[in-house]
Amino acid sequence: MTSENEFVRRLARRFPVRQPVEVGIGDDGAVLRCSTDERTVIVTDMLLDGVHFELREIDVRLAGRKAIAVNLSDLAAMACLPTAAFVSIAVPKGMSAAHDRFLDDLYSGIEELTREYDFCLAGGDTNTWHGPFAINVCLTGRPMRNRPVLRSGARVGDSLFVTGPLGGSLRLGRHLIFSPAFEAAQWLVDHAQVNAMMDISDGLSMDLHRMMAASHAGAILNAHQIPIHDDVSASLSDEQRLHCALADGEDFELLLSVPAVDAVSLRSHALQAGLMFYEIGTVVEGNAIRLCDEQGHLHPLTVSGWEHQL
Amino acid sequence: MTSENEFVRRLARRFPVRQPVEVGIGDDGAVLRCSTDERTVIVTDMLLDGVHFELREIDVRLAGRKAIAVNLSDLAAMACLPTAAFVSIAVPKGMSAAHDRFLDDLYSGIEELTREYDFCLAGGDTNTWHGPFAINVCLTGRPMRNRPVLRSGARVGDSLFVTGPLGGSLRLGRHLIFSPAFEAAQWLVDHAQVNAMMDISDGLSMDLHRMMAASHAGAILNAHQIPIHDDVSASLSDEQRLHCALADGEDFELLLSVPAVDAVSLRSHALQAGLMFYEIGTVVEGNAIRLCDEQGHLHPLTVSGWEHQL
Repeated sequence: MTSENEFVRRLARRFPVRQPVEVGIGDDGAVLRCSTDERTVIVTDMLLDGVHFELREIDVRLAGRKAIAVNLSDLAAMACLPTAAFVSIAVPKGMSAAHDRFLDDLYSGIEELTREYDFCLAGGDTNTWHGPFAINVCLTGRPMRNRPVLRSGARVGDSLFVTGPLGGSLRLGRHLIFSPAFEAAQWLVDHAQVNAMMDISDGLSMDLHRMMAASHAGAILNAHQIPIHDDVSASLSDEQRLHCALADGEDFELLLSVPAVDAVSLRSHALQAGLMFYEIGTVVEGNAIRLCDEQGHLHPLTVSGWEHQL
Repeated sequence: MTSENEFVRRLARRFPVRQPVEVGIGDDGAVLRCSTDERTVIVTDMLLDGVHFELREIDVRLAGRKAIAVNLSDLAAMACLPTAAFVSIAVPKGMSAAHDRFLDDLYSGIEELTREYDFCLAGGDTNTWHGPFAINVCLTGRPMRNRPVLRSGARVGDSLFVTGPLGGSLRLGRHLIFSPAFEAAQWLVDHAQVNAMMDISDGLSMDLHRMMAASHAGAILNAHQIPIHDDVSASLSDEQRLHCALADGEDFELLLSVPAVDAVSLRSHALQAGLMFYEIGTVVEGNAIRLCDEQGHLHPLTVSGWEHQL
C-alpha cells in the first residue's frame, strides 16, 4: 500500500516539468505557458459513485454539479477563473433506460455552474459499461491577475487564514451544494499579497501539511481560532468538534498564507466587502505542524483527513 | 435510448461555444484561443476495463499506453503535437495490494509515450473504489502549423484518403500498440492543403458519416480502393472483409480530405518520404454516403461501426 501523498511525490519525480508546463504534478492545478504574458491553468478531478456521492441517495443533478464545483474550487484556489470544461462519463448500462432523465439531469447540474460562472462545456467523452457511475472533469482557467497563486509560496512569518468555518460537510450534504470561493479569491488578489493558497478538500490538517511541505516551512495553528461549522454535531465534545474541523474534509474553503502586514486588512477591510476571513495561525521555520491550545501549549498536529491508500 | 451521435449533437446545442473557446463539442478536440496567434487544443478520452481493454488478459502497462495513445491520435487528427497530459484513475480497492507493480506498470505504459513524443504528465487524480479500473486522459496540444485541422472543412470535389489499412484491430490487439499518426499528419500539413481530418476510432463508415455531417457534404467511397488490414481474417468472404475494414473500428489511422489537385502529391511524393496514403473516394454534393462497387454501381453505405447507446 502506498499513500496518495507519497504516490504523487513519486510521480512528480518521474515526470519532471518541461515547457510549456511551468507547474506540474503536486499543486491544485498545472500552469501552462501560452505566450510571454499568458498562462493557462488546468485542473482535473474524478468523482465516483460510492466514494464522492451516493447515487442511490441523491439526484444525479447534484453529482454533476459537484463534479464541476470541486474543480472550480481548485481554480479559485489558484486565483483563476474558469474558461472551459471537459466532462467524461462512464454510465452503467441500462441506467439511461431505467432513468429517462439521467443524462439530462446530470448535465443540468453541470449547466447550473457553467451559467453561473460564465464558461463553456467544450468537450468530453461518453461511455456505457458494467461498472458504477464515474465522472471526470477537466477545467481550463485563466489567472485573475497576472500569475496563478501556488501552494508553495508560504513564507516564515506569514499569517494563515481560511475563508469559512470547517467540518461536517459530508454529514449534512454541504459538499454537494457549496459555492466555490471565487469572490474571496478575487478580493484577496486585489487587496493582499497572497503568498500561497489551496482549497481544503481533504481536511485542514492534511491540506495544511501539504501546503507547508510544498513551501518548505512549518506552522502553528491556534486551536481556539479554528472556525467550526454549524454542520458539526453540537452533541460532540469540544475536542471531537475540533477534530471534525481539522479532518472531515470536503470543506472547499480556501487556506491561504499572507504576510503579517496584510493580515490587518484581511481582518478589517474584508468585512466591508461582506467577506469574512478567519485567522488560524502562523508560518514558522522548520517543518513541524503544531497546534497551540488555549493554555499556550504546543502539540504536534498529526496528519489526519482523507487520503486514498493506493 | 439515445445514440452517442445524437447525444453529442444535443450537448453541442445546449452548450454553445464562447471565448476563449473557438471550437467546442463535436470535433476530435476543442480549440482554445490563447492569444492572437496562439491556439491550445484539448482532447479527452475515458477508457474502461471490460470496454476498451480487458485487464484479466493484458498487462496494465498496455492499458496505460492505450489511454494516452488514443488521445494522441485525436491530436494527430487535428495536426497538433502534445504538450501536457492529465491522467485520472479509479483503481479497484485491493488491486495495488494484490498486484504490487500495478501502478508502476500503468505509469510505465504512460511514460513510454510521454518520452517518445516529448511531453509532460502535468497532473491528474488518483482514487480507489469498489468499481472496475477506469482511466481518463486529457491532453493539451499545439498546432503543427498555424491552425488545427478540423473535421468540418471537407469540400465538394475533395479526394478522401486514409493513412493505413483498416479492420481487425481488436482481433489481434493492434489497438493496444498502435502508433499515433503524427508523422503522416506533419507531412500532410507541410505538403498539402488538408481541408478536413479526423482519426478513425469507431470505424471508417461511422467516422466518414461524422466528417461529412460536420462538413455538410456527401461522399462516394470506392469499395476496391479501401485498404484491408492483414489483421482481418483471410478466411472471411471478400464482402465480410470489406465490412471489417468499414466497421471494426479502433484503427487510429487518419481519414482526410484534400483538394483533387493535392491528391497527386499524396499519391507520389509521400512514397519518397516513406509514407503511404490510400485514396478511397471523393466528396460530393448532398448528404448521402455511398459505396461504389467494382461494376460501378452505387450502394448506400449504412452507418455501422462502434457507437455507445446511452
